[in-house]
Amino acid sequence: MEVKNQNIQIIGAGLCGSLLALRLGQRGYNVTVFEMRTDLRKTDISAGRSINLAFSDRGNKAIKMVGLEDKVEKLCIPMNGRMIHDRESNTFLSNYSGREYEYINSISRGGLNALLLDEAEALDNVTIHFNKKCKSVDFENSTAIYKDYLTKDESKITSDSIIATDGAGSALRKSYVTERKFLFSYSQEYLTHGYKELCILPAENGDYKTYKNALHIWPRGDFMVIALPNLDGSFTVTLFLSYEEGEYNFNNLTTPEIVTEFFQKEFPDALELMPNLVEDFFENPTAPLGTVKCSPWNYKGNTLLMGDSAHAIVPFYGQGMNASFEDVVEFDAFLDKNEGNWEDVFKAYSQSRKKDTDAIADLAIDNFHEMKSHVGQAIFQEKRKIEMALEKEFPNNYSSKYSLVTFNENIGYREAMLRGRAQDKAILNMLSDGDISTNIDFKDKAVLKIVLDKVIAETNNILEDDMVAKTMHH
Amino acid sequence: MEVKNQNIQIIGAGLCGSLLALRLGQRGYNVTVFEMRTDLRKTDISAGRSINLAFSDRGNKAIKMVGLEDKVEKLCIPMNGRMIHDRESNTFLSNYSGREYEYINSISRGGLNALLLDEAEALDNVTIHFNKKCKSVDFENSTAIYKDYLTKDESKITSDSIIATDGAGSALRKSYVTERKFLFSYSQEYLTHGYKELCILPAENGDYKTYKNALHIWPRGDFMVIALPNLDGSFTVTLFLSYEEGEYNFNNLTTPEIVTEFFQKEFPDALELMPNLVEDFFENPTAPLGTVKCSPWNYKGNTLLMGDSAHAIVPFYGQGMNASFEDVVEFDAFLDKNEGNWEDVFKAYSQSRKKDTDAIADLAIDNFHEMKSHVGQAIFQEKRKIEMALEKEFPNNYSSKYSLVTFNENIGYREAMLRGRAQDKAILNMLSDGDISTNIDFKDKAVLKIVLDKVIAETNNILEDDMVAKTMHH
Repeated sequence: MEVKNQNIQIIGAGLCGSLLALRLGQRGYNVTVFEMRTDLRKTDISAGRSINLAFSDRGNKAIKMVGLEDKVEKLCIPMNGRMIHDRESNTFLSNYSGREYEYINSISRGGLNALLLDEAEALDNVTIHFNKKCKSVDFENSTAIYKDYLTKDESKITSDSIIATDGAGSALRKSYVTERKFLFSYSQEYLTHGYKELCILPAENGDYKTYKNALHIWPRGDFMVIALPNLDGSFTVTLFLSYEEGEYNFNNLTTPEIVTEFFQKEFPDALELMPNLVEDFFENPTAPLGTVKCSPWNYKGNTLLMGDSAHAIVPFYGQGMNASFEDVVEFDAFLDKNEGNWEDVFKAYSQSRKKDTDAIADLAIDNFHEMKSHVGQAIFQEKRKIEMALEKEFPNNYSSKYSLVTFNENIGYREAMLRGRAQDKAILNMLSDGDISTNIDFKDKAVLKIVLDKVIAETNNILEDDMVAKTMHH
Repeated sequence: MEVKNQNIQIIGAGLCGSLLALRLGQRGYNVTVFEMRTDLRKTDISAGRSINLAFSDRGNKAIKMVGLEDKVEKLCIPMNGRMIHDRESNTFLSNYSGREYEYINSISRGGLNALLLDEAEALDNVTIHFNKKCKSVDFENSTAIYKDYLTKDESKITSDSIIATDGAGSALRKSYVTERKFLFSYSQEYLTHGYKELCILPAENGDYKTYKNALHIWPRGDFMVIALPNLDGSFTVTLFLSYEEGEYNFNNLTTPEIVTEFFQKEFPDALELMPNLVEDFFENPTAPLGTVKCSPWNYKGNTLLMGDSAHAIVPFYGQGMNASFEDVVEFDAFLDKNEGNWEDVFKAYSQSRKKDTDAIADLAIDNFHEMKSHVGQAIFQEKRKIEMALEKEFPNNYSSKYSLVTFNENIGYREAMLRGRAQDKAILNMLSDGDISTNIDFKDKAVLKIVLDKVIAETNNILEDDMVAKTMHH
């Protein structure tokens, strides 16, 4: 196979699709991208409405691969930890890591996507078409059918291979489901909660109205509000709340009075920052929170699902974009190994990658409960205190589950999950049994070393016992 | 609500639907059942072709509820254990329980279904229509659309409430998915293996060609053959094999020579009992093995999924029919509590039941690996040896996972899974660490008591540690 002669069709020019187009363009393929939306670089997105995302080390690995590290850094606002807001409007900062150089970033989806589109389009061998909605894919013949939103014309495009990066509602995935030409395992799972975006506008002088370098959380047990900073001084705020359960829920927050009462009671300091609350609340949609898993991702060497189309996850670990970017890095590595046979590349990539995207999907749901509830609990805070101390004093010997997932891009999500969960179990059980405690001198390194050794030994015990038992349940 | 005035529509007159019709009829409802197949009581099912099923205590609890215990017992062939066949044609019997009165039964699907149809139809307030295929359900209006296979006519039937017991391919579930009127979580997961039914015919004198009172297994690690006895002296045999992987698989078993070679090499004693092997192999279809989970099962008080339509599972725990029958028992209990409000009944039933059907789905997949592989492994056999001795000597103090699932109808599947898995983990780890061993005098009750105490203590430790950690991952 002569790479330069291969025509690759990408469905979707979102974050994953535009990064993939850029990378495959850099590798010399003829790349054509079809995006259903209008070109976001030509649309005015009003201030404060832009959605921001968490960007961290796994995503940055991909950005380094395509040589855009410096340009992307300019779009980033570092967030060093969670700023927890309690009901009495007290706040405290809980760092993401005991290592100072480990933090996550808030980044604008639109800004990052525009950069990737610019860079991809700058290559001679990459073409991007907008306003082309994929209706279905004839995966037996590597042909996709598009409808043009402006002209209403339909067209059929055949390529050597098609990669669908068209998100959670993927047209290719739908074709896999409806055509029933092979055994396609598929799941869509919704949380009982939905979400609604709100906004803290900048102060009149353009400043941030609350602390800039943190991910703000108002944990309330069964629901929560979070806020991430934007470059223009605003924060994008998200309310996560049950549709049906609890005293206040999306189904009964139907009048300005009830919405204001709810925020007054539960989030008084956030309400103060959002005079625009009621307007935003009734203007913006309520959206569901779903997880999609499926298998296989490829059909022969003809088609492949990548990014959210293969594994849509809930947003609570801040890993959605990072996971999709990591897909491109992993795919690139399998291209190095198997270039010349699409079926081999697609199969090897999928088989290696799926365990990790399954893991981050499960971790993201864990983190939903952690953020809305556990961060406010004493035993959780004790665990975090110990972990922060271990990471600070023994930076090369300990990483919490959060650090393994977020800052250790050379460990797969699955390994991070297994080790991270075992550590959590070890620490929580030892705290509960009194084997370790926060009632120690955290400045005494010798004392901390004893804690470290206990945590590592108990974690390894747990992992070993699970390994022996694993033979019985796969 | 006057029960007698309520019209209940049941989609599907299989095992679950006919049992449900009988029970609701006994309770006084006006019940109308629509079945897509022809009346199985009027069709000739040839000997040896009938599919048999494992019938055990959970199923029997339902049969007792409708007063048919004695009639059903006559259809049963007790199977006391697994008869394991190795590659050298050696056999050994591994009992299902150390308690002699605990065994499972092989029962004919057709015979049992016919009995339930007869009993239901004998009630004045139950009507069953055959050859009526449900096309879709308008769940907003409690209306189902049927096509008559004979007349080709379509009809719309509206009832006070509709319960779909129409199996893994449920029309109601499809309507839930396609109508998108509410957030419907849904998964279909296929194993990499498929199955094909074969047959050991009776001997010329009508006798069973191999031991009658066992479930025969030929475990081969990555694949297996099983056989269950029928009342006519035959056995229904099933080959479970990968579609694609391994030296022999369904995709490459394409000629009589290769099929014979495969059985000669892997199952020589089974081949001897099946001179009809090649004919059966190429006549019978290869079918996939899938698990379906979904939620919610009900739409308001209008419609409800029950049995396989709500939770199709793989057959390896012999619990498919038992779980569906248990659905009817549980549903009946919630009718006792909430009769008069279908929505309350449907919701309370679903919320209570789903954790248990999710558990048996996962257990059934565990047992796939146990049957095809672990039953042939030394450490597994040591575990079973210890468990048999504990069940025999301490019948009131110990039940293995298999016993909890199969013979303890008053414990839910989820509790059976959690305790059963913890026990397996405890025993395997203690065997592996040398804390317990099979190198003891199994006739010395005092020695066994020490083992029992160790197993219970370690199991409780595991359950307790999991409970503390559970707060962190739901």
